[in-house]
Amino acid sequence: MVKAKMWVLTKHFDGFPKESDFQLKEEELPELEDGQVLLEALFLSVDPYMRPFSRFRMKEGDVMIGTQVAKVVQSKNAAFPVGAHVVGRGGWRTRAVSDGSDLLPVMPDWPRDVSLSVALGTVGMPGLTALYGIEEVLGLKSGETLLVNAAAGAVGSAVGQIAKIKGCRVVGSTGSDTKVAFLKELGFDEAFNYKTVASLEGALRDAAPSGYDCFFENVGGPFSSVALSQMKDFGRIAVCGSISTYNDTESQTGPYPQMSMIVKQLKMEGFMQSRWERKHPESLRRLMSWLKEGKLQSREHITEGFQNMPAAFMGMLRGENTGKAIVAV
Amino acid sequence: MVKAKMWVLTKHFDGFPKESDFQLKEEELPELEDGQVLLEALFLSVDPYMRPFSRFRMKEGDVMIGTQVAKVVQSKNAAFPVGAHVVGRGGWRTRAVSDGSDLLPVMPDWPRDVSLSVALGTVGMPGLTALYGIEEVLGLKSGETLLVNAAAGAVGSAVGQIAKIKGCRVVGSTGSDTKVAFLKELGFDEAFNYKTVASLEGALRDAAPSGYDCFFENVGGPFSSVALSQMKDFGRIAVCGSISTYNDTESQTGPYPQMSMIVKQLKMEGFMQSRWERKHPESLRRLMSWLKEGKLQSREHITEGFQNMPAAFMGMLRGENTGKAIVAV
Repeated sequence: MVKAKMWVLTKHFDGFPKESDFQLKEEELPELEDGQVLLEALFLSVDPYMRPFSRFRMKEGDVMIGTQVAKVVQSKNAAFPVGAHVVGRGGWRTRAVSDGSDLLPVMPDWPRDVSLSVALGTVGMPGLTALYGIEEVLGLKSGETLLVNAAAGAVGSAVGQIAKIKGCRVVGSTGSDTKVAFLKELGFDEAFNYKTVASLEGALRDAAPSGYDCFFENVGGPFSSVALSQMKDFGRIAVCGSISTYNDTESQTGPYPQMSMIVKQLKMEGFMQSRWERKHPESLRRLMSWLKEGKLQSREHITEGFQNMPAAFMGMLRGENTGKAIVAV
Repeated sequence: MVKAKMWVLTKHFDGFPKESDFQLKEEELPELEDGQVLLEALFLSVDPYMRPFSRFRMKEGDVMIGTQVAKVVQSKNAAFPVGAHVVGRGGWRTRAVSDGSDLLPVMPDWPRDVSLSVALGTVGMPGLTALYGIEEVLGLKSGETLLVNAAAGAVGSAVGQIAKIKGCRVVGSTGSDTKVAFLKELGFDEAFNYKTVASLEGALRDAAPSGYDCFFENVGGPFSSVALSQMKDFGRIAVCGSISTYNDTESQTGPYPQMSMIVKQLKMEGFMQSRWERKHPESLRRLMSWLKEGKLQSREHITEGFQNMPAAFMGMLRGENTGKAIVAV
């Protein structure tokens, strides 16, 4: 008899998530039927998107959404033999029974010296998000100047490094001096702490006096309005996230963007990585080879213990992580 | 000795323009030098863009910016013989001396039964704006549903009709019941008076219950936020104007658009017709042939008398015109 733990959303978040919005439950898993496998979670992901998508894709009482790297520990499915590692979409659970339809095998020939947790970060969804935002949405070209905010996060740190690989000038905004130092290590041309600069507009202008060709937007809110004013004519904006507004109880408001968009003929596009799913295998191979070549560094912020998932999630929303926030079971 | 009248911006507009922001002046024009022509204005254009661009492109004391259809009445420039009609960019003037660099000949073989004023409207800048917004920015495809606001204006009325030519379903928002009737005459599938509907959101949803593929934005402000909520996934928005915010003394604010743009993966692009200038000759020919075939109707709102230019301009900003606002000298 196999038991599994899981974190349930007891109440839709109202403002910033609270411990009491989550409940740890335990349940017994059934015996496997033909076609099924038993999974044991090794690493779980906490990501910003979980905050808004809990509202759109979950009801109270559901297990929290999310991905994990898991090991197949029992199998009645030839596609997923015992010992195989998979990325599963089963949410915040220690163990689960799956028919395989929500599983992706971890990339074949995953290198022994790369932690499997990286399949949730730089060589996983956040890395793909960075790559597609740059290639499919922005069409970033060598020599251009790119701005990215939340730059020390899982997506932002990949964005800056991929833009450097593409021969661009990269400016990153982040929320602490330690993170600024991290961005410099990663090769960002300019990085600043938006919490301590005298003016965001001044910081953006000093970092790129002739403006930005591209802006990879993770933050939204007031930052977005100031960044608009620093775009070059025909600037492109990839809207990936809006973390500064996820915990609003009432919508924040700001100046309407239309006039700036007309005068500079700006283009702004919202996107999710799932749009290019058919490209994932090839894209993951490219991310992995950049990683192996040392062109793409993967920093992780690891929280130990499944019982700490809500704390890891809330810490990530507060920006306590540098790099990808991961929970190790 | 030739005298010219002109309207000067005495003071940058602060809020809605006032009579006292304009001054009518008279000056003597010099004798023509080689390469120059003397122009006499027949029709002058008043357009929404003049309000925001007065701030960006003019200083106090400048003649108001704008285009006109003029006749060459004296010429020392073989390219523009006496009697030729041109579209000139000299601003709000009755007569002017030009070296030709700011002039475009009115399309050759302009039909005798089409008023030359149409070169300032449907077969001119507003028509081109509609066409490029639809073809170059939105990439509108047959069978799609398009929303356009300020739909009875010079640009909006062309947008709706061109979208009908392309086999689309067209919904127009406008500011009076008379204009609603006009839009129905033009072939719009749905039209409503945004000032009298119980709720804009409800009106947009009733007119297109499954949402909008494309949105041609002329209004900005609160309308833009409501329209975002009614877009389909992967919806495209061409931002042409923002007339509801042009007269703000303080920026109006509204909810940030990023979250809606991410969840629906929307694309929004600001544009000006000048970007596709090299396509103008071919585009004007297409607009003219649609006009001749009766597929594109051109309605004009004509104010008589150069002395009434400020009144015509302010009336247009208040939405008093149906179709293109023109001043006949």
